[in-house]
Amino acid sequence: MNLRMIKYTLGWLLMFEAGFFLVPIITAAAYREREIIHFALAMAICAAVAALMLIGKPKTRTMYAREGFIIVALSWILLSIFGSLPFMFTGVTTSFVDALFETVSGFTTTGASILPAVEDLPRCILMWRSFTHWVGGMGVLVFMMAFLPLGGAKNMHIMKAESPGPSVSKLVPHVRTTALILYSIYFILTVIQFILLLCGGMSVFEALNTAFATAGTGGFGVKNDSMASYSSYLQIVVTVFMLLFSLNFSAYYLAFKCRFKDAFNSEIRAFLCIVAVAIALVTFNIRDMFSTVGEALKHSAFTVASLISTTGFSTTDFAAWPAFAITVMLLVMFVGACAGSTGGGIKVSRIIILFKGVIKEIKSLLHPRRVNKITMDSRPVEPDVVRGVNSYIVFYVLLFASSVLILSVENYDFLTTFSAVTATINNVGPGMSMVGPMCNFVFLSPLSKMVLIFDMLAGRLELFPMLLLFAPSTWKNK
Amino acid sequence: MNLRMIKYTLGWLLMFEAGFFLVPIITAAAYREREIIHFALAMAICAAVAALMLIGKPKTRTMYAREGFIIVALSWILLSIFGSLPFMFTGVTTSFVDALFETVSGFTTTGASILPAVEDLPRCILMWRSFTHWVGGMGVLVFMMAFLPLGGAKNMHIMKAESPGPSVSKLVPHVRTTALILYSIYFILTVIQFILLLCGGMSVFEALNTAFATAGTGGFGVKNDSMASYSSYLQIVVTVFMLLFSLNFSAYYLAFKCRFKDAFNSEIRAFLCIVAVAIALVTFNIRDMFSTVGEALKHSAFTVASLISTTGFSTTDFAAWPAFAITVMLLVMFVGACAGSTGGGIKVSRIIILFKGVIKEIKSLLHPRRVNKITMDSRPVEPDVVRGVNSYIVFYVLLFASSVLILSVENYDFLTTFSAVTATINNVGPGMSMVGPMCNFVFLSPLSKMVLIFDMLAGRLELFPMLLLFAPSTWKNK
Repeated sequence: MNLRMIKYTLGWLLMFEAGFFLVPIITAAAYREREIIHFALAMAICAAVAALMLIGKPKTRTMYAREGFIIVALSWILLSIFGSLPFMFTGVTTSFVDALFETVSGFTTTGASILPAVEDLPRCILMWRSFTHWVGGMGVLVFMMAFLPLGGAKNMHIMKAESPGPSVSKLVPHVRTTALILYSIYFILTVIQFILLLCGGMSVFEALNTAFATAGTGGFGVKNDSMASYSSYLQIVVTVFMLLFSLNFSAYYLAFKCRFKDAFNSEIRAFLCIVAVAIALVTFNIRDMFSTVGEALKHSAFTVASLISTTGFSTTDFAAWPAFAITVMLLVMFVGACAGSTGGGIKVSRIIILFKGVIKEIKSLLHPRRVNKITMDSRPVEPDVVRGVNSYIVFYVLLFASSVLILSVENYDFLTTFSAVTATINNVGPGMSMVGPMCNFVFLSPLSKMVLIFDMLAGRLELFPMLLLFAPSTWKNK
Repeated sequence: MNLRMIKYTLGWLLMFEAGFFLVPIITAAAYREREIIHFALAMAICAAVAALMLIGKPKTRTMYAREGFIIVALSWILLSIFGSLPFMFTGVTTSFVDALFETVSGFTTTGASILPAVEDLPRCILMWRSFTHWVGGMGVLVFMMAFLPLGGAKNMHIMKAESPGPSVSKLVPHVRTTALILYSIYFILTVIQFILLLCGGMSVFEALNTAFATAGTGGFGVKNDSMASYSSYLQIVVTVFMLLFSLNFSAYYLAFKCRFKDAFNSEIRAFLCIVAVAIALVTFNIRDMFSTVGEALKHSAFTVASLISTTGFSTTDFAAWPAFAITVMLLVMFVGACAGSTGGGIKVSRIIILFKGVIKEIKSLLHPRRVNKITMDSRPVEPDVVRGVNSYIVFYVLLFASSVLILSVENYDFLTTFSAVTATINNVGPGMSMVGPMCNFVFLSPLSKMVLIFDMLAGRLELFPMLLLFAPSTWKNK
């Protein structure tokens, strides 16, 4: 284990985070908020620790897969710990666990909150919350690697561990160029949404916050009622962009290169089918709750887009909808977005691979001697990807069940416990019942919050980095 | 597809079922119940249809894997349809769906009931219910195959499809001898339990019913309060036997052959560990609900044994226990019994294989070039068994989610819907909330009941036979 290399990389990461604090500091300066001092203090601490860690360059830059996983897992933990400082310095919360919960929820683009009335908060705090979504959406390490000449070709390990989806494909031969292309797409889409929101009458502050939270598929809002009081135009813009940020970003690059057939691949087609079916089912189920079917359709489309993209914005209290709609919504939370997007959940491509695995099994039961292979978009899926997806699901179920078990100690109703875990492990944000869109997570015990913090991190990093961090064999030096 | 062979085998199956009706007929004769006529009528119909189906022997006895699956799936469906006749003839229920639900619940050893007060029912009906558990516990086709010189070596296909667990191992070279050994163990254990129950003061009728229902890990009782009013001695006997019938029956044979190390294999050790941990957790959680810790332990042990063995007997209303105990109980329902037992659930050996798959994945992430193999009891697990287990889990989750979705149309609370599916797909019987041990399933809509009937059959036959029955490629003649 190249510990020096890990320390050095983490040092750079904290230096970047110190830079991130400029965003809330500028906000505080613009609105003359006195919390500027708290952010400056957090920035100073972050930079000082970073400087200490950057002393002593690593002798070798060797980095194996396990270093990659460890760096990714520790990065996200450190990032969240230092990111939670302003919440405590400003006195928004006095509990470290609560501050950490809010920050992890931000960076992992979950959007589950422990803060009750966001409209009373300083604008710099709101901006920091939204900005953590934007930073976390595409992953900060891949971003950093694109600028630093650290690991060279070894960056692939980091990219594999941080990017969502069962496998990572490079758009162009270089990891660095691939990263730059993806971040450019991310940046451009965010700007377009920002402009469209401004056109709809949002203030610059609101538009920026909303664009950040949508782009990262996070869901922290600046209004107590999330998106309920905005115009239909704004709600529809957000609906469309939540879906756009749920697509594999490679698709935009491929479409730009006029490779439309490659862009509109089977994952995107399946994703759009699921969205359409879910919207239709929910609309039908809630049609009597609104004055017109059109109104029901608007809320249904917004909610399904919000939950399948794992954003978590709401235009209405969807936890009050009938059981059928709630089940559909829970199911789309599990499905999640496409691989290579900023969304969470299990990911559509994993679901497709799992489905195809079952079909392959049926075929081999019927014709034991025939050899069947799993293909996707006419290309074979590598056996180790299939194995990885299967292990992912098993670990996912284990983590899910353990989390529900620990949370059940608090003796809340089953839907609260079940949906709290669903909403965090899939990085959605709001759940149902007592953790619905009109409620928050503050009433849970510190133990439950720690479990959900782990779930948010594990969900964002697709389980394995967090799992490896706690596996004894990772730390054995052989 | 050898349709003639399928028809002929199903004919023999119905002939056997006609014979099974002798058990309730004898009971009705002994207690001079007028329902004897209804059972006789059912028997006559069953025998007549069987005789018609046995006309025209199959020309070839060729049987491939798919014929095996189809025979198993259709057998269980036909068995249940004809087995439900007495429920309608006697007027116990007027709904065909309810009668089918009760019969499927019997044969699949689920024990979920649509009948409210069983003490008011004729004894022959109660005996028929318990006897379906006993017949279904070990599977009727393997039994039949042991007596009929039908398929010869091809019986392995049937045994694979009907026996619970990820893989079938023959104790002795011949399938038929293996089957005879297993049925003998089943018979002997049932007799021992019957005698121990008689010693505890049960009547012959009650002891026979209870022994049948425990042996098949079914759970249909003859008292309205299940096992609550019986003495501690009787409750403890049932606790022990529920666990004994959850072990792999091969273990008894191996122990008999003095191969104790092989008998006490990793699956049985894991099963006993899970049972011990679950009992400890539940006892701790419910300790304040009973006068002494001993009392809490007794109820906890009985309930955990009842739910992990997927029997479903109860000594108290466990649905009223706190959320933590309920979560533990739901989890053990999913785990289920050992492979090669009469119990349901996912099976401990599958869980072990899944766990080992994750550990293998961690190792190959850390050391990508090393080759890791999954072993169990120092023997390698064949890759197709691992693949089969993975596909099983995926299909299990899909079926589970679809069932919850369809049931949620009825708009009951989430725990009711979730646990109704959990209790049927794992062949447990009672669930939680509105389908708890003090309630029954009669209030559900016919659509929900049909879904749960499918779940019970799919759960008992370990998914694939029922899946293949509805796969178009099964019926294609290539």
